Amino acid sequence: MTKFMDVHHGMVGITDEQLREAHAADLAIQEEEGVAFERAWADPDDGVVYCLSEAPDAEAVQRIHQRAGHPADEIHRVPLTV
Amino acid sequence: MTKFMDVHHGMVGITDEQLREAHAADLAIQEEEGVAFERAWADPDDGVVYCLSEAPDAEAVQRIHQRAGHPADEIHRVPLTV
Repeated sequence: MTKFMDVHHGMVGITDEQLREAHAADLAIQEEEGVAFERAWADPDDGVVYCLSEAPDAEAVQRIHQRAGHPADEIHRVPLTV
Repeated sequence: MTKFMDVHHGMVGITDEQLREAHAADLAIQEEEGVAFERAWADPDDGVVYCLSEAPDAEAVQRIHQRAGHPADEIHRVPLTV
């Protein structure tokens, strides 16, 4: 398992409720790909959302996001953390 | 205090030690601007570093990063979190 940070653009105006619903949609199916989404942060002004997860690989992260209806624009493996 | 996610590009090949040193350099002076850096994640392959902080504003985050020798390329206010 490796940590991943994925990024969604074009989310200008996202609300707290929308972020929670999107996160819940990921959590509902994440086990099917062995993914564990940990946190998400949203900037509604610039329309950027960051999601932190642990997953077998980036493709597994993307499959969950795609099935939940919000594919990521970038997925970065972030093995280094402080 | 608001949460911020800042992003550094061009960090290809960053090592765990370099990430820790950069983070420590921020922590050493962050109180002077009322900033609290919480976590950082690095992707050495794509050369991207994400830093999560709480701060009075984005300018305070940038002043600490600049003084520590690594100005951010993007600073996003992320008031929404899950």
